[in-house]
Amino acid sequence: MPELRRDPIIGRWVIIAKERGKRPFDFVIEPERTKGGFCPLCPGNEATTPPEVLAYGRDAHDPNGQGWRVRVVPNKFPALIIEGDLDKRGEGIYDKMNGIGAHEVIIETPNHYETMATMDLEQLALVFRAYRDRIVDLSGDPRFQYIIIFKNKGKAAGASLEHAHSQLIALPIIPHLIQEELKGCMKYYDYRDRCVFCDIIRQERSQNIRVVCENDEFITICPFAPRSPFEMWFLPKRHYSRFVSMNDEQIKMMAELFSTTMKKLDTAIKDVPFNFMLHTAPLRENGLEYFHWHIEIMPKVTTVAGFEWGTGFYINSTPPEEAARVLKETEIS
Amino acid sequence: MPELRRDPIIGRWVIIAKERGKRPFDFVIEPERTKGGFCPLCPGNEATTPPEVLAYGRDAHDPNGQGWRVRVVPNKFPALIIEGDLDKRGEGIYDKMNGIGAHEVIIETPNHYETMATMDLEQLALVFRAYRDRIVDLSGDPRFQYIIIFKNKGKAAGASLEHAHSQLIALPIIPHLIQEELKGCMKYYDYRDRCVFCDIIRQERSQNIRVVCENDEFITICPFAPRSPFEMWFLPKRHYSRFVSMNDEQIKMMAELFSTTMKKLDTAIKDVPFNFMLHTAPLRENGLEYFHWHIEIMPKVTTVAGFEWGTGFYINSTPPEEAARVLKETEIS
Repeated sequence: MPELRRDPIIGRWVIIAKERGKRPFDFVIEPERTKGGFCPLCPGNEATTPPEVLAYGRDAHDPNGQGWRVRVVPNKFPALIIEGDLDKRGEGIYDKMNGIGAHEVIIETPNHYETMATMDLEQLALVFRAYRDRIVDLSGDPRFQYIIIFKNKGKAAGASLEHAHSQLIALPIIPHLIQEELKGCMKYYDYRDRCVFCDIIRQERSQNIRVVCENDEFITICPFAPRSPFEMWFLPKRHYSRFVSMNDEQIKMMAELFSTTMKKLDTAIKDVPFNFMLHTAPLRENGLEYFHWHIEIMPKVTTVAGFEWGTGFYINSTPPEEAARVLKETEIS
Repeated sequence: MPELRRDPIIGRWVIIAKERGKRPFDFVIEPERTKGGFCPLCPGNEATTPPEVLAYGRDAHDPNGQGWRVRVVPNKFPALIIEGDLDKRGEGIYDKMNGIGAHEVIIETPNHYETMATMDLEQLALVFRAYRDRIVDLSGDPRFQYIIIFKNKGKAAGASLEHAHSQLIALPIIPHLIQEELKGCMKYYDYRDRCVFCDIIRQERSQNIRVVCENDEFITICPFAPRSPFEMWFLPKRHYSRFVSMNDEQIKMMAELFSTTMKKLDTAIKDVPFNFMLHTAPLRENGLEYFHWHIEIMPKVTTVAGFEWGTGFYINSTPPEEAARVLKETEIS
């Protein structure tokens, strides 16, 4: 059983998930699966993953067969497990609980060679619908407080499989960094009576030096204080705190601008590894005035070292104004 | 001029330090200098570094000659620059200031092939004396609020030079993560009237399942909620909030236990890349009851990916009890 442990100083939680049979100093990181090798996410290999929890695009009669367009399965090596009670308890001055949670893999396409930058808009919209529908479904479990959806692309960004996929983790607590973000937004709202993200969008559109692209509903910017070169934030222009509020029409518009964003990134820095993280309001909150859902996209082009670890202070050699200019001028096909 | 920018939500600061002449998408990370190549930190090449600010072990008559045992020089490619005013200012809703600060390199040994795990205790004590003496010297500059000393060892941990060295950065603000740490410690102190680190040391010594090694003055433990496999914390057993309070006798004892810690790590996981960060009280604080200086040692054996970026929540496959047992049992020569 994995364990959730709380750092007694910062309040940061960690998941201690011992992999069975592995000695504590076996750190051979699984190589990214190369083109042509066996891929558990490809059609035909459905039986090698745990049984699916969602599939779009095929007849429901064959729940683990081929013909799907997007498929969601539990992670075969989950960081948290779904069965059991939290059993919150202490160990002297320390706090811990059982590692209860959900860990799922969203297989974005049946095509091994397709990426978010190359798939068509309808396919990308299906991926975002899967995000939404899995959050809605898991919200029914009263043990969960927060759901994070993220993507690791490329080995340097932590991906162990090449086939395009995202991941979802449902947590029994609100992570420290999300709490920090919520607190920061609340402070701003208390002072100005406005959402800080709405103000950011307003200022960025008027300054127009860090905007990468936009359509009627969404906007991509390079943030004012980016942690890494070419960091981007993708936001709905109108105020929504919960990603699940997006209807199918909005998801279509979202796919359109996200596709442009991915194409620009992939063209400007060929095959760049990256992570993205969907930040949405905690599950038990219902329409927050002060928070605004968004996706943070972090290209992995540098190494996080001692200074960043020690201070939470980042050194970035690419001003966001330059990154935005390069991305804006990048022509995509 | 580098710029310090504040994220308007979290309050995290970043340094935007554009490297001259570099295009924004040149991310070829400098390879770690291999054995035998030209090394700017080796004796004989003193002229290739900026003029030294400290040297131990040689006649002061030849300030940039050979014969030194430990040498400190300004970083040739500094993230912050020492001359100028902060000029704090806004840009709409955003905050920024000039990137004023010091960025120095502590060359730990004249011997290119020596490491903290192999150098003798006297040499290691000189390194820690250099840390202390540089902090004392830079504290005189009223623009600085905080000094962090850290080490990147190995390419995966962000080192671009092989020759053993640490780095020092003096900052005009207290970094977000340090503020978080101070706040957490203060909260604990408010509630219990005791230092959380003193309580941790007391519990660890009594449980004795996460202690790696100790002597009369210092202790190394694997923390209860480690972010990475084999994370270690090195602490003085008695309460001191400021590293600069250490006298020469204590620094000798520190070198003794730190050497053991490094030897154990280096033997248990051969040539492991790692970062360490010295956390001490802010410069303008004078003996805090609630904070305790310490060094956090983070071996780099896994990749930080989207989940960690998005939540500040870490997944660790090695329980600290196992890491401590392995390190404790590791025999060193």
